[in-house]
Amino acid sequence: MAAALRTANPDFRETILRHLERQEFMKHIGCVLTSIEVGRVTAEIPLEREHQQQIGLVHGGVIATIADVAAGFAGFTLVGPQEHTVTAEIKISYFSPGRGHTLVAEGRVVKPGRRMHFCEADVFVVGDTGRKLIARATTTMAVIDPRKKGLVQS
Amino acid sequence: MAAALRTANPDFRETILRHLERQEFMKHIGCVLTSIEVGRVTAEIPLEREHQQQIGLVHGGVIATIADVAAGFAGFTLVGPQEHTVTAEIKISYFSPGRGHTLVAEGRVVKPGRRMHFCEADVFVVGDTGRKLIARATTTMAVIDPRKKGLVQS
Amino acid sequence: MAAALRTANPDFRETILRHLERQEFMKHIGCVLTSIEVGRVTAEIPLEREHQQQIGLVHGGVIATIADVAAGFAGFTLVGPQEHTVTAEIKISYFSPGRGHTLVAEGRVVKPGRRMHFCEADVFVVGDTGRKLIARATTTMAVIDPRKKGLVQS
Amino acid sequence: MAAALRTANPDFRETILRHLERQEFMKHIGCVLTSIEVGRVTAEIPLEREHQQQIGLVHGGVIATIADVAAGFAGFTLVGPQEHTVTAEIKISYFSPGRGHTLVAEGRVVKPGRRMHFCEADVFVVGDTGRKLIARATTTMAVIDPRKKGLVQS
Repeated sequence: MAAALRTANPDFRETILRHLERQEFMKHIGCVLTSIEVGRVTAEIPLEREHQQQIGLVHGGVIATIADVAAGFAGFTLVGPQEHTVTAEIKISYFSPGRGHTLVAEGRVVKPGRRMHFCEADVFVVGDTGRKLIARATTTMAVIDPRKKGLVQS
Repeated sequence: MAAALRTANPDFRETILRHLERQEFMKHIGCVLTSIEVGRVTAEIPLEREHQQQIGLVHGGVIATIADVAAGFAGFTLVGPQEHTVTAEIKISYFSPGRGHTLVAEGRVVKPGRRMHFCEADVFVVGDTGRKLIARATTTMAVIDPRKKGLVQS
Repeated sequence: MAAALRTANPDFRETILRHLERQEFMKHIGCVLTSIEVGRVTAEIPLEREHQQQIGLVHGGVIATIADVAAGFAGFTLVGPQEHTVTAEIKISYFSPGRGHTLVAEGRVVKPGRRMHFCEADVFVVGDTGRKLIARATTTMAVIDPRKKGLVQS
Repeated sequence: MAAALRTANPDFRETILRHLERQEFMKHIGCVLTSIEVGRVTAEIPLEREHQQQIGLVHGGVIATIADVAAGFAGFTLVGPQEHTVTAEIKISYFSPGRGHTLVAEGRVVKPGRRMHFCEADVFVVGDTGRKLIARATTTMAVIDPRKKGLVQS
C-alpha cells in the first residue's frame, strides 16, 4: 500500500531532524535515524553493554523503544508542518533473543489516516553471521495538531 | 485472583536482586525495584532530562521499559530457582502524556501458568499535584528453563 | 477513574437500544446487553453448541466478539448523539479455556478522550461452579462524527 | 522466513479437515478454509446480512474470528499429530470499514517455536471493485500437548 502514501509536509526531513535535536532519550540510548523517506523510517542503535539485560541479551525495552521510534517517525513523515504524532498504543512480539553489534528497526506506515496512522516496525539484530528479524511491532499513532484541543481529556 | 498466587522459589527476592546486579539497561536509565512481593513488583525511575522526547514529555520507550520490567519481574517471582521469564509480547496503551518527577510502574500477575504468565502493569507519573495513571500494559511472559531446549527455534 | 466519566448524550441508552435493533451479528450469535451505564456496559451470550470450537470450548472468536461489543458500547455511552465509535484495535488475552452455560463481558472506559476512548473488557464464563475470568481485552475506540470526513483515508 | 517452516505432522491437512467437522462456530458463521499449506492457511466467509453491525459494515467480531481461524490453523499445520494450538493472545488492527461480498483471511506463521508460534493474518474484503486489506492481526499461539499437563493452572 506504500504507493498511496502522500505527505502533507514536503520538508518532513528537516522537520524531523529539528525534532531529533531535542530527543533526549534517543541520544541517551544512542538511537539514530539512518533513513527518512515518505512513510518509511529506519533507526539504528550500536549495541553496547548498557543495552543488555541480566543475561547479556538486548533488553526488551530497547527493542520496544527503537520500534516505537521507527514506526512513529514513519507516521511523522506524513503529517502537516504544524502537526505531530503520538503513540496511542503499541504491541511488540519478541520472536528471538537479541545478540549482536547493531539493532536496526524499519518502520512503515501500513494505513495512513486523517486522525490516526497504523504503523509497523520490524526489528533486526545484526551480528557476525548476518541480520536476523527478532521482533515486530504494530502501533496506532494519533495525529496531533497542537493548535487544537488535545487528543485526550487531561 | 492474586490470592491464588504461589511461588516455586521461596528465595525469589534474593534471586531477583542477584539478577538486578547485571541489569545494565535498567541501571542506564535509572530504573530500580522498590517492592518485590509474590506476583507483584513495583519499579521506579526518577525522571531526568535524559528520559524526555522532543517536547519534554517522558519518551514512550521509557514507559514501555518500566512496564516490561514491573510486569516481567512480577512473573519472575513465581518461577522456580532455575527458571526465568522472557517477554513473548507486550502491548502498551498510552492514556496521557507523562510529565512529573517520578515514573512508577506496578506490575502484577493476572493469570499464572506452567509455561506462560499473563501479567499487567499500570504506569503512573508522580508530580507536584499527585499521581496519575498514564499507561497500562498487558503482556505474555514465557517461563524458561535454561536446562531444557529454548523457547523458540533459533 | 470511573468517577470522572461524563456523557455527551443523556439519551445514550435509547440511542444504543435503537442501534441494537440493526445489530445483525449480535443477534446471529445471541449476544445481548444486560446493563448500560455511563462508561460501563455488560454483554451476555447464553452458550450453545454453535459457539464451540472443535474440542467443545467456546471459540476464541466468540470471546473476541463479546469483548469488542462490551468495550465498544461502553465507549459509545459517552459520545454525542450524532457520533459513534469504531474499534481501531483490540487485543485479547485468553487466560483459560471457556466452558459453561453463559458468557459475560463487562466493558468499561478506562480513559475517555475527545477523539479516542481507551476501553477494556473482562470476559467471564458462568458454569455450575460459579463465575470465572477467562479473558481480558484492551482496545482503542475511535470517536466518529459521520458529519465530518471519515476516520481514515478510503 | 517461510522457507524455514517444517511440519511435525505430514498428515496436517487430514488432521485439520477432521477438526473442522466439529468446528461449530465456524459453521455457524459460514467460515471455511480454502487453502491449507505448511505454515499458511486461507479462510473465507461469504458475507451475508448476519455478519453486519448496525450500519451495514462487517462486524469487528467476524473479522477477529476469521483472523484467529486463519492464523491459528496456520500454526496448527506445524504441530505434531497429537498436539494442537490455542490462541494465547491476539491483537487486531482495523484499517478500514468492511463492505463487500466475501471476507478473506490469509494466515501465516511468522516465527515457529517448540512451545509457541507467532502468527499473523491479513484480512481482505472482496467487492465489486476488487480486494482491499481491511485488518491485520498478530497473535501468539501456544502449542498444546493434551497428553501433558495443561498450559495454564486451572
